[in-house]
Amino acid sequence: MDEIRVALVGYQFMGRAHSNAYRQVSFYFPELQVRPVMRVLVGRQRKLCDQMAARFGWEETEYSIEAVAARDDIDLIDITAPNNVHAQLAIKAAKAGKHVFCEKPLATSLEDAKKARDAVQKAGVINTVCHNYRRAPAVALVHKMVENEDLGEIYHWRALYLQDWAMDPAVPLMWRFQKRVAGSGSLGDLMAHSVDLALWLVGDISRVSCTMKTWVKQRPKASAVDGGLGGAAAAGAMGRVDVDDGVVALAEFRSGALGTFEATRFAAGHKNYNWFEINGSKGSVIFNLERMNELYYCSGTDPADRSGFRLIQASDPVHPYMGLPGGGPRYWPTAHIIGYEHTFINTVADILQAIAEGGPSPEPTFASGCRTQAVLHACEQATKEGAWVRVPKV
Amino acid sequence: MDEIRVALVGYQFMGRAHSNAYRQVSFYFPELQVRPVMRVLVGRQRKLCDQMAARFGWEETEYSIEAVAARDDIDLIDITAPNNVHAQLAIKAAKAGKHVFCEKPLATSLEDAKKARDAVQKAGVINTVCHNYRRAPAVALVHKMVENEDLGEIYHWRALYLQDWAMDPAVPLMWRFQKRVAGSGSLGDLMAHSVDLALWLVGDISRVSCTMKTWVKQRPKASAVDGGLGGAAAAGAMGRVDVDDGVVALAEFRSGALGTFEATRFAAGHKNYNWFEINGSKGSVIFNLERMNELYYCSGTDPADRSGFRLIQASDPVHPYMGLPGGGPRYWPTAHIIGYEHTFINTVADILQAIAEGGPSPEPTFASGCRTQAVLHACEQATKEGAWVRVPKV
Amino acid sequence: MDEIRVALVGYQFMGRAHSNAYRQVSFYFPELQVRPVMRVLVGRQRKLCDQMAARFGWEETEYSIEAVAARDDIDLIDITAPNNVHAQLAIKAAKAGKHVFCEKPLATSLEDAKKARDAVQKAGVINTVCHNYRRAPAVALVHKMVENEDLGEIYHWRALYLQDWAMDPAVPLMWRFQKRVAGSGSLGDLMAHSVDLALWLVGDISRVSCTMKTWVKQRPKASAVDGGLGGAAAAGAMGRVDVDDGVVALAEFRSGALGTFEATRFAAGHKNYNWFEINGSKGSVIFNLERMNELYYCSGTDPADRSGFRLIQASDPVHPYMGLPGGGPRYWPTAHIIGYEHTFINTVADILQAIAEGGPSPEPTFASGCRTQAVLHACEQATKEGAWVRVPKV
Amino acid sequence: MDEIRVALVGYQFMGRAHSNAYRQVSFYFPELQVRPVMRVLVGRQRKLCDQMAARFGWEETEYSIEAVAARDDIDLIDITAPNNVHAQLAIKAAKAGKHVFCEKPLATSLEDAKKARDAVQKAGVINTVCHNYRRAPAVALVHKMVENEDLGEIYHWRALYLQDWAMDPAVPLMWRFQKRVAGSGSLGDLMAHSVDLALWLVGDISRVSCTMKTWVKQRPKASAVDGGLGGAAAAGAMGRVDVDDGVVALAEFRSGALGTFEATRFAAGHKNYNWFEINGSKGSVIFNLERMNELYYCSGTDPADRSGFRLIQASDPVHPYMGLPGGGPRYWPTAHIIGYEHTFINTVADILQAIAEGGPSPEPTFASGCRTQAVLHACEQATKEGAWVRVPKV
Repeated sequence: MDEIRVALVGYQFMGRAHSNAYRQVSFYFPELQVRPVMRVLVGRQRKLCDQMAARFGWEETEYSIEAVAARDDIDLIDITAPNNVHAQLAIKAAKAGKHVFCEKPLATSLEDAKKARDAVQKAGVINTVCHNYRRAPAVALVHKMVENEDLGEIYHWRALYLQDWAMDPAVPLMWRFQKRVAGSGSLGDLMAHSVDLALWLVGDISRVSCTMKTWVKQRPKASAVDGGLGGAAAAGAMGRVDVDDGVVALAEFRSGALGTFEATRFAAGHKNYNWFEINGSKGSVIFNLERMNELYYCSGTDPADRSGFRLIQASDPVHPYMGLPGGGPRYWPTAHIIGYEHTFINTVADILQAIAEGGPSPEPTFASGCRTQAVLHACEQATKEGAWVRVPKV
Repeated sequence: MDEIRVALVGYQFMGRAHSNAYRQVSFYFPELQVRPVMRVLVGRQRKLCDQMAARFGWEETEYSIEAVAARDDIDLIDITAPNNVHAQLAIKAAKAGKHVFCEKPLATSLEDAKKARDAVQKAGVINTVCHNYRRAPAVALVHKMVENEDLGEIYHWRALYLQDWAMDPAVPLMWRFQKRVAGSGSLGDLMAHSVDLALWLVGDISRVSCTMKTWVKQRPKASAVDGGLGGAAAAGAMGRVDVDDGVVALAEFRSGALGTFEATRFAAGHKNYNWFEINGSKGSVIFNLERMNELYYCSGTDPADRSGFRLIQASDPVHPYMGLPGGGPRYWPTAHIIGYEHTFINTVADILQAIAEGGPSPEPTFASGCRTQAVLHACEQATKEGAWVRVPKV
Repeated sequence: MDEIRVALVGYQFMGRAHSNAYRQVSFYFPELQVRPVMRVLVGRQRKLCDQMAARFGWEETEYSIEAVAARDDIDLIDITAPNNVHAQLAIKAAKAGKHVFCEKPLATSLEDAKKARDAVQKAGVINTVCHNYRRAPAVALVHKMVENEDLGEIYHWRALYLQDWAMDPAVPLMWRFQKRVAGSGSLGDLMAHSVDLALWLVGDISRVSCTMKTWVKQRPKASAVDGGLGGAAAAGAMGRVDVDDGVVALAEFRSGALGTFEATRFAAGHKNYNWFEINGSKGSVIFNLERMNELYYCSGTDPADRSGFRLIQASDPVHPYMGLPGGGPRYWPTAHIIGYEHTFINTVADILQAIAEGGPSPEPTFASGCRTQAVLHACEQATKEGAWVRVPKV
Repeated sequence: MDEIRVALVGYQFMGRAHSNAYRQVSFYFPELQVRPVMRVLVGRQRKLCDQMAARFGWEETEYSIEAVAARDDIDLIDITAPNNVHAQLAIKAAKAGKHVFCEKPLATSLEDAKKARDAVQKAGVINTVCHNYRRAPAVALVHKMVENEDLGEIYHWRALYLQDWAMDPAVPLMWRFQKRVAGSGSLGDLMAHSVDLALWLVGDISRVSCTMKTWVKQRPKASAVDGGLGGAAAAGAMGRVDVDDGVVALAEFRSGALGTFEATRFAAGHKNYNWFEINGSKGSVIFNLERMNELYYCSGTDPADRSGFRLIQASDPVHPYMGLPGGGPRYWPTAHIIGYEHTFINTVADILQAIAEGGPSPEPTFASGCRTQAVLHACEQATKEGAWVRVPKV
């Protein structure tokens, strides 16, 4: 069996999630004709990088993108570094002829996103942005329904991504609150996921209206909390939050459908409520990531007195990603549920398969990532202008 | 016991709902110091009016507002005629010194709404717009929480009002699809309810962004369906729909809270999904009219490992409207649920009590109705202009 | 239009619920060819009876069954007196040739129930036991499904009726805790409803196993709480609870289906959780009285990847009791929900119609009431014997 | 770091689930002072065993318990072979001085279970039966509540374990339908889980009543379906099902609580509905494995007008198993849900830790497994006798 030799950049939350996916993919996807080798973990803090490599199961470490890009024993570079370096790392990887798998967002600006896209296209490498929720089986089932035209003409898309972890003003000024590193707050962190799904399931967005809020405008600097550095930290070391705590947006799709989006870190009681609903002429669906094994579906063809939203346990071998080619469950029997991490495993499986087959690149490609970025860009513009803004063509 | 002599204008859906409320209020509110007398039903179609008066229990009929306003045996005029005559009927009633209870919307234009408000204020009569959902016990409980500051600073309001009855293109061109009579479609019919609740529970809205859609632009004229009047109807008598099938809006509250609104008649599978959620610094609530006896509430003071949304059965004597003054249930024991009609009974009880006590007018007064109308007005402007629009002061 | 002249015995909880049904039935069932006249309220406490007649809308009062049975201006006698006099009152009414509508339970012993049944059959009068939950539209829809064989062969019936009002030991020793008056506790009060539904929806039960518990064995006598009679009451006037707080039972249906029943007043957090589920070879249904407008239904004919329990809003004109003969809603449009009281209105409508048509008696007749009583009887026997007991033929 | 060298017997469904747990435990439990080594996979079908060892990641294979028990490089023997050999394998492992982890049920008879228990106790080895649902964080949270006396005196336990995979008569006569191998059907397969949880959360059961059903009494022999062997198979090769398709039981706990149990493979629409509810004097909890990251909890200390069942997202670092010792999530952030497989990982972690610390054995020990077996035994007796049966002391 052929090996795909992987280098991973970054070892925080997403680095851990991606590492786990490489560790598990061959166990759950025995039909894959290739297997990943966890060759190199890349990070700038040498000691920490070495330590994480040992914990996550990477064979070696490198401390710069240049070093790893220069190696000829690497096929795929996976980027989970902070948002603001995604694009530049991806470009370097592509120029070195490596396949590239990049955590979302592809970039912190539309311009950078396009540069990254151009780079991978020029290099002809496999390229995918990590929007793992596409590969929750229930979400993939929605896509299948859309492709089968089971929902008919789409009238409404509505999406919520609600969390509450940032409500406490004592939560420190981590990088997610800093525009320079994160690009934006709830917009790029949460709503980006909803936009990716909307574009996939409903199609292109032509224009948006938007506004954002920052309720907690000052937070204790991380060092004051994390490091406990004494006097200096205590002496009023508050820093400015320059990203949004919450965002709301309206959208008009090219198809004529109406869309709403809301993402926030200030919705008390909601932990990871990534929810969407689609209403079409033939039926509706509702998805909620907190119950990611389930899909609510209302079919327009039900008899009049027996119509309603049904709860599909989307964890059966008949559902996307859930069955082995020869029959039987890929993971576990129906309703023996899978979790968050399996969306990454499914994603990595698709990438490995694409590399094995020489393409095409699994969706969302960098080109698709640019389309998402264009919507986020338009949202920022619309917020500034107080008016509807057309989504730029990319 | 004193009598409040009522005249009701209109005998369609709302006329029936109001009639029922007058019939029942004394049974369920034995503590009321007055009782309503169902004196006169008013309608222009004489035969039908007489017939409905008999069915609903009205003693007499009149066929014009002038006739009933001139009578000195009427204390309260209740208006459920089509939207486009609400304001003018209310003004005539007020000028005759009658108390006025008016179905929503107060008018089909902001200008007319203000005229109606001015008329009742000048006349010094009790005046209330019928937004019956305020008086669902679960909603009234939310208001109590807000007044107690149990939710803290409000960050988010989101409201949906989803129906699907208009999706079928064969649904005829009834008055609800005609701008001249209805004023607007889902905006005034459905979203108006959500706006009323938002103003009550979160406070004034400073600006809005909005857009609307009409997916089915032609419908068979009602005569072609209802009456079957022969040649003309059969010959393809389609008429133009000039109101919105669906509307989406963003709002910024004066307090700094963000709001979203969506109302539609094109959400397959939803029948009467009047839903809202409030997220505040101390907790959140979720209400859904289809389960109107329930309220979901998340308290910020729960212990960390036991926190979550709790389902309150808001049908206990401890809840608003649900207990008799001397103890025990007003309606039925806890979770022996009440229904849609009881929101009207509660509303009528409050009006009768206010008349008995000489005021003040129960909320939403015509002044409050104007504030709701101002938001709807701004939504229409925002839709036309493609930009955020400030809500006019009224 | 013909009149059905009604006498009602009792004016507590059920007396109020029945009164309300007579008051409302003609409004909601305009197609009825008869209308009820609320002629006489019957009670032994003269002053209270007069007062309640005024409040509930009864024209006159009588103070004994004999007096009212002797009147020739009464067609129907409705019995809501305490359980232990149901049968004897029904027998007297029947002997006087009156139609009889009797609150459940028909009697506090199987023997008495059979006597009541024999009396009405001998007299040839219309007779019905009030099991109002049969006439929740969602429940009637289940019956329709069963009759259509949409559920196939039934494998499982499971029923819960959970309340929590009696958990507080300070709740006084009201009649519901006294075997002499109530017959039993949770068994006859709550589980009786579940048994009635089981017999209707699944068929006869052949044998049962059962046990019961009384957790709070002493309660303050009612006078000590209600009347505040001073010294004597304060001096530890506790009385013995001699009925069950909770009951659990297994059942085998004649058809071979397995059944479980549980009824309790000691389930913290449940207020009126009257719930059942049926699993058949072609599908399943789930009903919960607290959400009585809804029915969960799983159809065995759904495609494999789209199968699941769907939530039917059983409040549409296509559903039982919800449509007018000429079309349109009987009560309100779909999902503008109805409540507990409407189950009584539907029941009274069926009885009035049966009287108008000269029969047959609406189900559950007294004969059916005996079948329910026989199951409860067998449960008591099984509890005593610690063994499965066959349900006696009646 | 010390190694625990593991041998696994069996490679079907449970063998795969246990293998996965060993593969993942060190990644998710970095604080463990030992790590498992997947040394030997044991099976009688040599070729298949070798193949599965390669797939699941086992270093070597053996083909008999004797061979593996004789090896001195094995610390822990994990048994996932068919039910009827559990006890004998465990005894051999214990006699060889190996720690033993045994899939449920511990045996197919009470007598054998006790022999296995005696063997491990005599050998002084760590011993645990695999009831992995105890280690779903939400279930462990219930146990914590019980220990804290947050639920007060327990009145009711009710448990359902509902599946529907066996309803189709074409499902072949696999080992789960054969008493000789499986011991029983839904009783031992499903209800055993509920009994284990009941004993853990509510305490000992003193007596039971029970009955069982087999609706599909003949099934095609597995060869006729699996192998497609032609003539012989086609010629009526049906075999007899001699285990239960469904079981219902009542229980009385030593504490006085009432319990109900139901387990079935014939509940259309339910896939893995392992559900239980506890009602106590201070509160109630509801768990459903299909939503295993959630727990419904009603606290008796909520204010009267704000009381109800709250949905706890039991996936926060504050919840059992979900936090790392130093803070932060063990798996993923709150409501980034975990799945079925993680219950095995948690179980294996506890066993490894116990071995590292030299005991005591993690619950359920073989002694606890005997208590579960005694309840199942009493259920079978009660079914035969048609009477309540006392649970034998073990």
